[in-house]
Amino acid sequence: MLIIKSVDEMKRHMKDIKKQGRSIGFVPTMGYLHEGHMSLIKRARGENEVVVVSVFVNPTQFGPNEDYERYPRDEERDKKMCEEAGCDILFMPNKDDMYRENYSTYVEVHGLTEGLCGAKRPGHFRGVATIVTKLFNIVKPDRAYFGQKDAQQLAVIKRMVKDLDFDIEIVGCEIVRDVDGLALSSRNTYLSEEERKQAPILYKSLLKAKEEIEKGERASEKLIDLIKTTILEMPDAQIDYIEIVNNETLKPIEKVEGEVLIALAVKFGKTRLIDNMVVRV
Amino acid sequence: MLIIKSVDEMKRHMKDIKKQGRSIGFVPTMGYLHEGHMSLIKRARGENEVVVVSVFVNPTQFGPNEDYERYPRDEERDKKMCEEAGCDILFMPNKDDMYRENYSTYVEVHGLTEGLCGAKRPGHFRGVATIVTKLFNIVKPDRAYFGQKDAQQLAVIKRMVKDLDFDIEIVGCEIVRDVDGLALSSRNTYLSEEERKQAPILYKSLLKAKEEIEKGERASEKLIDLIKTTILEMPDAQIDYIEIVNNETLKPIEKVEGEVLIALAVKFGKTRLIDNMVVRV
Repeated sequence: MLIIKSVDEMKRHMKDIKKQGRSIGFVPTMGYLHEGHMSLIKRARGENEVVVVSVFVNPTQFGPNEDYERYPRDEERDKKMCEEAGCDILFMPNKDDMYRENYSTYVEVHGLTEGLCGAKRPGHFRGVATIVTKLFNIVKPDRAYFGQKDAQQLAVIKRMVKDLDFDIEIVGCEIVRDVDGLALSSRNTYLSEEERKQAPILYKSLLKAKEEIEKGERASEKLIDLIKTTILEMPDAQIDYIEIVNNETLKPIEKVEGEVLIALAVKFGKTRLIDNMVVRV
Repeated sequence: MLIIKSVDEMKRHMKDIKKQGRSIGFVPTMGYLHEGHMSLIKRARGENEVVVVSVFVNPTQFGPNEDYERYPRDEERDKKMCEEAGCDILFMPNKDDMYRENYSTYVEVHGLTEGLCGAKRPGHFRGVATIVTKLFNIVKPDRAYFGQKDAQQLAVIKRMVKDLDFDIEIVGCEIVRDVDGLALSSRNTYLSEEERKQAPILYKSLLKAKEEIEKGERASEKLIDLIKTTILEMPDAQIDYIEIVNNETLKPIEKVEGEVLIALAVKFGKTRLIDNMVVRV
């Protein structure tokens, strides 16, 4: 596995690979990898001749009071895991090389970014769209892999790729969960032992809602109430949002119909977790 | 010369050319071509294996009260001129194909876009940066050619290409002028006979300022006054702005130093003309 830290070197290297006509699969990450990332890298490995993983904690997608500084990092572990999963090129740029002097350009996706996580994290998806555009231009992938856990991010990137005419296939991959159902996330490391015990309630509440839908319930309000009541059984849970939206437009819907996304964000202590489920009726 | 109207067909075609490893030179235009455009196409012809010209009057760079609807168009003439100048592929998409249903993504370049033309045309450079990003992703050029007449546009695109890591060389080309000094522009066609007679004062006023600088004048205020007085000798001239700025940052400067841009916008009747001169001291 080749490790490249310089943006210019990465550009030259990827340009060469592109010229050779080999297919490129790309997994952009913020590092501190877990089995969720591994599943993306393995999928990329199966579908492409060259697999590129980036590890970059992107400052522009963190708000001023968010966890940019304390976001977990472990370069050595990330390297080992990438190698294990079959990565060919690991790109680990630093922030001054990615955002150089007088940096001024941002990509904004309207409409999809105002609700859900966007409401509490203004500027977050602007940062995501911008860094993904930059990485796409540097890596020049044929396919890029994103986890379904960040459902809004996935929808935003799909929209952006369509709108800006990127010639890249965006592959959304299923959420990987711990044995007790908690969706894997680098931020799970923030949880205290007690909070960690309570956190699987998020998945359980989503499963309950799904069951109700299967039994015939269609009213979003009732389903949201059910999820809320379930989650609030846990003493440390503080709900940020629970929403049922159309899975493409991310617009809230009153009645479950077609392909819907049930999405939620809940804080346990200082740690904000997200989870979601796509249901088709 | 191949004429392509469909965005998807253009993408497929350019992807094939890219795979063959041939160098691509690109001249994006809004059509109604003149000798200024021709000089860009000819330059691209000399420096690349494949020359692509786009003709697209981009709605997102026009304000609600601007001249999108009445902007001059002449498809047949454009085709002939492109063929003559050595264009290989002429891309003429329509606006519904470029901006499809639920279009939501925009590229913003901050800092450079607030002054000069940006002050009176809010959203203009957002539209420019967005369409150029889209065209770059569709055409995949090695080099793209822009006229120095739109000096702020050129600076914005250079900044955007650097910031978003596009692997494209931006080539700025000299202003082409009529025999009496008027910078060529598709909008010159709006001028009445009387206004057309007065318009060359813009270039004359810039030359006067340059002469003063060569004689030793460094105070922007005095130079701007000189340009203003000169232009206002013409009865139909209404000044929008006259500014002296740093040619890279586009920030106004008090003293002429290094590479400066003298830029102006002046209305004759309903027609707004721009012109500029780069001076190095």
